[in-house]
Amino acid sequence: MDSKKASRRKFLKGGAAAAAVGAIQSASGQTPAPAPVKRSLKDEVAYGERSHYVTSVRVAVLERPSPDEFGLTFHVLTPLQDQVGIITPSSLHFVGTHRGAIVPDIDPREYRFLLHGMVDRPLEFTLEELKRFPSVSRIHFVECLGNRARADHKTVQQTHGLTSCSEWTGVLLSVLLKECGVQKGANWVVSEGAEEVKGAGSIPLAKAMDDCLVAYGQNGEAIRPQNGFPVRLIVPGFEGIYNTKWLRRIKVVDHYYMTYNDYGHISKDPKVAGLNLQWGPKSVITFPSGGQKLPGPGVYQLTGLAWSGGGAVRKVEVSADGGHTWKDAEIRSQVHRMAHTRFGMTWKWEGQECMLQSRCTDELGQVQPTKAQLAKFFNQPPDYYHTHGVQGTDNTIQPWRVAADGSVSNAFA
Amino acid sequence: MDSKKASRRKFLKGGAAAAAVGAIQSASGQTPAPAPVKRSLKDEVAYGERSHYVTSVRVAVLERPSPDEFGLTFHVLTPLQDQVGIITPSSLHFVGTHRGAIVPDIDPREYRFLLHGMVDRPLEFTLEELKRFPSVSRIHFVECLGNRARADHKTVQQTHGLTSCSEWTGVLLSVLLKECGVQKGANWVVSEGAEEVKGAGSIPLAKAMDDCLVAYGQNGEAIRPQNGFPVRLIVPGFEGIYNTKWLRRIKVVDHYYMTYNDYGHISKDPKVAGLNLQWGPKSVITFPSGGQKLPGPGVYQLTGLAWSGGGAVRKVEVSADGGHTWKDAEIRSQVHRMAHTRFGMTWKWEGQECMLQSRCTDELGQVQPTKAQLAKFFNQPPDYYHTHGVQGTDNTIQPWRVAADGSVSNAFA
Repeated sequence: MDSKKASRRKFLKGGAAAAAVGAIQSASGQTPAPAPVKRSLKDEVAYGERSHYVTSVRVAVLERPSPDEFGLTFHVLTPLQDQVGIITPSSLHFVGTHRGAIVPDIDPREYRFLLHGMVDRPLEFTLEELKRFPSVSRIHFVECLGNRARADHKTVQQTHGLTSCSEWTGVLLSVLLKECGVQKGANWVVSEGAEEVKGAGSIPLAKAMDDCLVAYGQNGEAIRPQNGFPVRLIVPGFEGIYNTKWLRRIKVVDHYYMTYNDYGHISKDPKVAGLNLQWGPKSVITFPSGGQKLPGPGVYQLTGLAWSGGGAVRKVEVSADGGHTWKDAEIRSQVHRMAHTRFGMTWKWEGQECMLQSRCTDELGQVQPTKAQLAKFFNQPPDYYHTHGVQGTDNTIQPWRVAADGSVSNAFA
Repeated sequence: MDSKKASRRKFLKGGAAAAAVGAIQSASGQTPAPAPVKRSLKDEVAYGERSHYVTSVRVAVLERPSPDEFGLTFHVLTPLQDQVGIITPSSLHFVGTHRGAIVPDIDPREYRFLLHGMVDRPLEFTLEELKRFPSVSRIHFVECLGNRARADHKTVQQTHGLTSCSEWTGVLLSVLLKECGVQKGANWVVSEGAEEVKGAGSIPLAKAMDDCLVAYGQNGEAIRPQNGFPVRLIVPGFEGIYNTKWLRRIKVVDHYYMTYNDYGHISKDPKVAGLNLQWGPKSVITFPSGGQKLPGPGVYQLTGLAWSGGGAVRKVEVSADGGHTWKDAEIRSQVHRMAHTRFGMTWKWEGQECMLQSRCTDELGQVQPTKAQLAKFFNQPPDYYHTHGVQGTDNTIQPWRVAADGSVSNAFA
């Protein structure tokens, strides 16, 4: 066949060197590729692995004292900067934990799920019994309340790595509740997990009867241990903590139950003492993002994720001038309710210092606020949200500063 | 909290013992659970693994002589009987191979993709350059021509395990073709992979300009080595062989090019010598399916997958009486064009011998045929299709026979 000569590119005409994007690039540059792991052909056939050139990993956030070998409770952050599309690889799904890395090792044959409280017929289900109810499979994000940008966060993995998105399969909780017969006067359900501290959460009965899943499947296979094997609750659009992992019972009750998990939701400060359940519209640019460096002026694919607890993403806008002007980004994935949605934009960087931000509007018409707007709402100084502890979800706009040398940093800093 | 007493179940009232469904069940019963693999906490944090209770694996089909340690070319079958939802876990995606298990080990920094032939500007792209074009992420199935039921196939993994479904991310081939400038008179494109035999395939230019993807992402991460790392072609709805893995070049040409891969498509028999490209509407029941056994009469969740190369699945019907009567199944996943779609039905088995079949209708109104209907179309005896070699796609209805003792078998046998 004919020559390999490559002539001028129309699309990339403004480009200098190639952009540093994705997992592959984090292995490129100076560092040699890791040697291939030697696996037998038999193992390769049975269960394939990723390329030895792909080295994207999660990292831990150390926080409170815990009994594991780290000695600290930690959450595990998903590498959003390396991901494409909307599905998070199950091996890289974020992990929120109460007790460090200690994951209950539950034998699925011994697993039981109890549904009781204000019901006509309290019932206990084995995993096999749960699978004898009609299943549904839906793509939803899960996001931890702790997913908030702070000034000392350098990368998007740090600012936003506590959200992931999977196809979840399970039984609608409403089907099981109807099986049990919910009694008059019931208003809330309390779900409890099997981990050492018995994490629990209260959600309104109306939500439980709507779209919650008692899920056993994640991205086509059984839920991973770190994400609740064999069964977890999925509460689409609500804070992660309500998506109880290692689900062992749900009690139907007549009022909100305070639980261990409420450390994350109840504040003594009356200004922020209200109960927040559902994520607002949110988005973040994953390229270019903190810690990355643009090799030079040129044409880039700006990309990121948007989502909302209120339903489907309707619009994502991007500003490259600190929020003065906004331009619609393209939606570059399939769009599902309460699911990550991939957006992108062809962006030409001339080499000037600038600030990049994205703004999500959801199907309810809710618009993602700036941090300053949210602080003003609470009548607080502009840095209010990220200098305080846990009081509510942070769905504010993430600004990234691009310096003249191409380096990208968190503009909160 | 209160008692665990479980009273009568309304929904499962017809049920005896629980149904044997899914990956977990294949590990249950007599066999003890595999011991957990000891991994360091550091490794667990970086990259999580599935539960040691989940043992679902792919199996190889040995066929022609090949240079790997098996000594035979083989395809690798995905365990459809264990899967839920529509996403195939990347580690369990089926693998079609020309040369056994020998997977090219391509350094993504050295990777080049050449687009040439009848174009104004032949261009060669690095992986990083491909990522500087706008990306799209879409859920599509891939299915090998070899995916056909034979009388000696016992399980759904054997009859249908050469199809899988992923979220693919990449650049539309049309974008790259426009970048190169397609010349007048061009009608076909030939794509070639980097494997030892240089697998290649010809597809119409109209398809190349429509919805084909030069893909680098699969289920949120880089494409797996066995599925074409770092770049493969996705030709939605077309036979698997056109979805060239380890894509190294595409040549724009004016007529169909015969290639090595045509062994699977061209026949000397004039009755079947026509070129078939696109999958028709297809479906299969994955539970109950061959090799499984119903523990006794009762209420079960019949479930399966449906798909079509012609677009979205519009309807799936199920017959439990050998095709005399059909009833609409429920669609239990999100529906995408040229993608697996999960269907299900609550089914009460009274203990009688019966035959189960599913039938897919797609958005074009195409209806999945029986094997006898297809044979009649070719004026051949009813067992025609599965006793012959490769002549075209087999999208015929799969019948499963349920015996009075609950055992399920391939009704072709």
